[in-house]
Amino acid sequence: MAQTKVNNGVNVDALLAAREALKGAPEAAKFTWRASCKWQNGTHSKTDVDEFFGLGQEQKHKTTTTFDADHPEIFASEDKGVTPVEFVLVGLASCLTAGVAAVAQNRGIQLRSVEAKLEGSMDIQGILGIDSDVRNGYDDIKVTFVIDADASKKDIEALVAQSQKRSAVYDIITNPTNVSVTVA
Amino acid sequence: MAQTKVNNGVNVDALLAAREALKGAPEAAKFTWRASCKWQNGTHSKTDVDEFFGLGQEQKHKTTTTFDADHPEIFASEDKGVTPVEFVLVGLASCLTAGVAAVAQNRGIQLRSVEAKLEGSMDIQGILGIDSDVRNGYDDIKVTFVIDADASKKDIEALVAQSQKRSAVYDIITNPTNVSVTVA
Repeated sequence: MAQTKVNNGVNVDALLAAREALKGAPEAAKFTWRASCKWQNGTHSKTDVDEFFGLGQEQKHKTTTTFDADHPEIFASEDKGVTPVEFVLVGLASCLTAGVAAVAQNRGIQLRSVEAKLEGSMDIQGILGIDSDVRNGYDDIKVTFVIDADASKKDIEALVAQSQKRSAVYDIITNPTNVSVTVA
Repeated sequence: MAQTKVNNGVNVDALLAAREALKGAPEAAKFTWRASCKWQNGTHSKTDVDEFFGLGQEQKHKTTTTFDADHPEIFASEDKGVTPVEFVLVGLASCLTAGVAAVAQNRGIQLRSVEAKLEGSMDIQGILGIDSDVRNGYDDIKVTFVIDADASKKDIEALVAQSQKRSAVYDIITNPTNVSVTVA
């Protein structure tokens, strides 16, 4: 079997063990991910990501990461960070890419390189309130993978399809997700 | 009028002028946002955000920003960045917060501080393929704002509601968005 030689850096054995363990302890599978945002000035904000809850207890990333978000100068802002909608593309890109690596490991396919280009199209007549028939968000997102791996084109396409099938962010974007917004 | 004294750092006049200009040039309102992701090892990837298209031409952020994404150590990964699903929360937090600042400016409400705490709950039985009835993504996202401003609780709640109504990321998450994934 090729599997024993393949190393994409994903510990599939640990993931499969986790899957077995969680089958008997579904409460441990309930995660809460968090972010904490502080407005700076104008459209500029800073968002911290550090703690989360899972496997029945509080967890922490190794470090706190702070993300600057802003609007670009063409929107009369200062461009002190990427736009909120670009963060969505970052999440989608990284989710599908991690999935490709994990599925490839599980299928015994050695990856040499994986690149994804994402394009999200949006008509800003929506957010500007010009035309109420135009939605605020993306009307379409295209993801194009270029993958160099020890596998046929067909097997690479199957990898990507399986990653998409198991992707949390792909699901969040393509299906409706409930969001409640309140003022404390 | 209070508006002349209010300064939240948002150039509402420029945004209103842009709205008027785009009413006569709807093609200019078509934007394309981009991200470019490279797999590193395991579940770790780096995603660059720099160029986008809008107002009829190629545009660029002042700098290229690179985002590390990974899975945490409890998933047998190296935690070299936040998880893809946390990027979605960063996008949502920053979108709603920028909206609060812009709407407050437009309504003549001086903000002193705006903070948002986000929690997204997810049952990882979905992504692990344990139970096909469990979705991969968030089953619920809660956003809680704490806002200090020269306004009544009711006016602050109305600010947040209007931000939500115009938010691109809120729309992307709460409504289905088409995503196509291909291999070049």
